[in-house]
Amino acid sequence: MNQPVFEVRPVGRVESPLMDRDLAPRQGDEGAPDAWLVIESAARRGIAEITVGSELIVLTWLDRAQRDVLAVHPRGDENQPLTGVFSTRSPDRPNPIGLHTVQVLEIDDLGIKVRNLEALDGTPIVTPIVEVKPILGPLEQR
Amino acid sequence: MNQPVFEVRPVGRVESPLMDRDLAPRQGDEGAPDAWLVIESAARRGIAEITVGSELIVLTWLDRAQRDVLAVHPRGDENQPLTGVFSTRSPDRPNPIGLHTVQVLEIDDLGIKVRNLEALDGTPIVTPIVEVKPILGPLEQR
Repeated sequence: MNQPVFEVRPVGRVESPLMDRDLAPRQGDEGAPDAWLVIESAARRGIAEITVGSELIVLTWLDRAQRDVLAVHPRGDENQPLTGVFSTRSPDRPNPIGLHTVQVLEIDDLGIKVRNLEALDGTPIVTPIVEVKPILGPLEQR
Repeated sequence: MNQPVFEVRPVGRVESPLMDRDLAPRQGDEGAPDAWLVIESAARRGIAEITVGSELIVLTWLDRAQRDVLAVHPRGDENQPLTGVFSTRSPDRPNPIGLHTVQVLEIDDLGIKVRNLEALDGTPIVTPIVEVKPILGPLEQR
């Protein structure tokens, strides 16, 4: 297969007290702090109808991950067998896109404050998507 | 903000009877067909531990979407007010990444057959992620 390559142009970045991957929680519900999604002015029209209390799915580009990893020990535990990355939550994988479910706490001119985001400070935001119930229904076709 | 640009190199593509965006269902649960995720040989180690019956979150690159759209009429209904795309499921958006929840029906040497994928034939696959309960827990940090 000869696949084309696509360019991700981030629409913003995460502002968070999380600075160090080694200290970050492995899951958002394992103690991740509140954080801001700072959205670039050129993309801000896209968030205009987001409301406090909404659930968002945030896709990020995990820019400190390794892209050439296809198998890992889950949760970094060497007692666990090497497992294909697509069966794990490893950020080290081809196209290291982070998938985060967060709740909107506050909105201001620059962006969105959210609860429980485990992404590191400065992580590029690929897109936020308001969660429409049922949870994670697929994107519509138009 | 001066954002870097990242390259998405697809790990495979969708094989589906869905050929035409105008005929495609808007949501996977509105009658999408079964489809194959054909994974490139170089990335196939990543899917080795995926099992029949698993739920997968599949991220695709919606290569027939428009990337310069920031507001739409939801579901293409002009009676609905223009709404920022990040509040909608519109594929026309910056970084048109599709988010699909599917169930694994079958696995063979080339890829994974899944139920209810509303992506068009040929859509590039950015990554599959086995769904770990609770639904859509965030990616772990390592």
